[in-house]
Amino acid sequence: MVFHYISPRAKIGKNVKIGANVIILGPSEIGDNTIIDSNVIIGYPIKANLIKIRETTKDYLEFLDLMSSGAKIGKNAIIRSGTVIYENTEIGDNLETGHNVLIREKTKIGENVKIGTGTIIDGRTEIGDNVNIQSNVYIPLLTKIGNNVFIGPGAIFLNDKYPPSKRLIGVTVEDDAVIGGGAVILPGVKIGKEAVIGAGCVVTKNVPESTVVVGNPARCICSRSDYEKRKKLYEEQRYD
Amino acid sequence: MVFHYISPRAKIGKNVKIGANVIILGPSEIGDNTIIDSNVIIGYPIKANLIKIRETTKDYLEFLDLMSSGAKIGKNAIIRSGTVIYENTEIGDNLETGHNVLIREKTKIGENVKIGTGTIIDGRTEIGDNVNIQSNVYIPLLTKIGNNVFIGPGAIFLNDKYPPSKRLIGVTVEDDAVIGGGAVILPGVKIGKEAVIGAGCVVTKNVPESTVVVGNPARCICSRSDYEKRKKLYEEQRYD
Amino acid sequence: MVFHYISPRAKIGKNVKIGANVIILGPSEIGDNTIIDSNVIIGYPIKANLIKIRETTKDYLEFLDLMSSGAKIGKNAIIRSGTVIYENTEIGDNLETGHNVLIREKTKIGENVKIGTGTIIDGRTEIGDNVNIQSNVYIPLLTKIGNNVFIGPGAIFLNDKYPPSKRLIGVTVEDDAVIGGGAVILPGVKIGKEAVIGAGCVVTKNVPESTVVVGNPARCICSRSDYEKRKKLYEEQRYD
Repeated sequence: MVFHYISPRAKIGKNVKIGANVIILGPSEIGDNTIIDSNVIIGYPIKANLIKIRETTKDYLEFLDLMSSGAKIGKNAIIRSGTVIYENTEIGDNLETGHNVLIREKTKIGENVKIGTGTIIDGRTEIGDNVNIQSNVYIPLLTKIGNNVFIGPGAIFLNDKYPPSKRLIGVTVEDDAVIGGGAVILPGVKIGKEAVIGAGCVVTKNVPESTVVVGNPARCICSRSDYEKRKKLYEEQRYD
Repeated sequence: MVFHYISPRAKIGKNVKIGANVIILGPSEIGDNTIIDSNVIIGYPIKANLIKIRETTKDYLEFLDLMSSGAKIGKNAIIRSGTVIYENTEIGDNLETGHNVLIREKTKIGENVKIGTGTIIDGRTEIGDNVNIQSNVYIPLLTKIGNNVFIGPGAIFLNDKYPPSKRLIGVTVEDDAVIGGGAVILPGVKIGKEAVIGAGCVVTKNVPESTVVVGNPARCICSRSDYEKRKKLYEEQRYD
Repeated sequence: MVFHYISPRAKIGKNVKIGANVIILGPSEIGDNTIIDSNVIIGYPIKANLIKIRETTKDYLEFLDLMSSGAKIGKNAIIRSGTVIYENTEIGDNLETGHNVLIREKTKIGENVKIGTGTIIDGRTEIGDNVNIQSNVYIPLLTKIGNNVFIGPGAIFLNDKYPPSKRLIGVTVEDDAVIGGGAVILPGVKIGKEAVIGAGCVVTKNVPESTVVVGNPARCICSRSDYEKRKKLYEEQRYD
């Protein structure tokens, strides 16, 4: 009744729970207590491997399975419906995704990372621990994101200064930075440790650590410590 | 052949049509003449309920079904492929969604509401009647949207003034307002009745009723009545 | 085990490969060597046809199949998981889509076109040859895009000057233009041949050919030939 395709090469941990229409390809490793919700695909092959299906008469999923190098996902993950995770990704414990998330090949993701619905993480990206990425965020090839970073909904990171070019350069976001919703971060920009990027900003140049920037183009308005003071008052409802 | 999971507790109205790979969980109520297209999930459990799957050896969908409080959807809805509607949502008659829409828990939606492809409505949101939400819009927790509101494609609403904070405050959009495509609306902003937000705006403070704002940060350029005069001339093709 | 619905009226070319849970409706024509990945729907009916399901007791997919006029897709396409292509679309050879792409009715797409994950192309759009559309782009009804155009991630095109109005006017993008990521292009704007739109721009009026614009509202900063000079130096790593 319920359809699954689970590779005979996959290593499925203890107490892994699997929804309907799930596809797990290649020698994927799924940590204990992980929940893989309906319509999820894990270990999706890169293009060079996918197109080899044209040269075979084998069954579609069995052949993709053979082609896939698998994905490695830690313990206690929650991977919600419609999410696709490519082969050669390595993801730490306690991943939580929304629905329809895409994580492409050669991406490394630390522990305790949340990735919101509709967010796209293209390949060769590095993401640290305790990172919270909200919904509909776009993160291209070569982006580097440190630990404890917060990325608001709809933020767009770029990697091509002169599109379409042959030399891509990713954005670097250092530890403890905050990126506001709807911000656009230009290629090669370095967001310093503890920096805060305001909502809807266009960030055209490096942001020094512990500074808060807003506007288009983004300019500094205060320090992170000022921001934290206001935040504290606001959270205590002593200030609107 | 075709797979469905339809909860034995669900109340399915007359002449409801159901596509392939549809999952309906919990005591969901589906109004008459509703079309539930392929790959749709209705009554999806919140995290606290989803993760209880780890504590059981029951079948995945049967257990999610037991955990779900169901969703309530009115008559004559069209719910297109890939859409996910959480438990404890209440939606009036004549809903129409595009593909891959997400509507999260405790959301209340009135009658005659359209929600475009890829749009995400996070939980505890209130949406009135006759609201038209275009594609790829992001609406977070605690947003309140009145009646007859139009929201253009890719608009982003926010709810956290000092992310990531403990005190969230939603945007309020009053009746008859228009939000242009790609606009970013900051947390706690109140968009007055009949106000118009231009495309690509960043709205940082309250917008008085019947005013039209554009730019980053958004500033007033004219009244709604001026806008309606120009609109009428434009629709009559007497003005470009 | 694996579910497919493939219309008996569909013309499937030689060596077409089909994943799990694929639905192909109506007299769709699929060119040789095309890969149709899991959870893809081709030939999806427009609303007027979809809602006729309410007037029949026939099987859901069989009836949608009868209603659909089919889609026409060229040779060597790669259509990744979750993509939905409507009826009455006509797409040339060598299409490549990401995941969860939507292409609506009466759209014409040339040869060698790439469309990134989550991108939405609404109906009656014309797209030329060798066009590269990145992820999460929104392209509404009536947009016209020439040949060799590059569109960065998250770009939003609009078509309604006075939303919600009765007179829609699409954006025109001429050959060889480049649209930066996160740009918002207002309704009716004409982007001239070889023009370049900077990332995060809001484009409020026509952009002359071979000019480069940035900012909100977008203004000219240099010529395309200056841009190409800098690009060449940059690609040669002689300039950052």
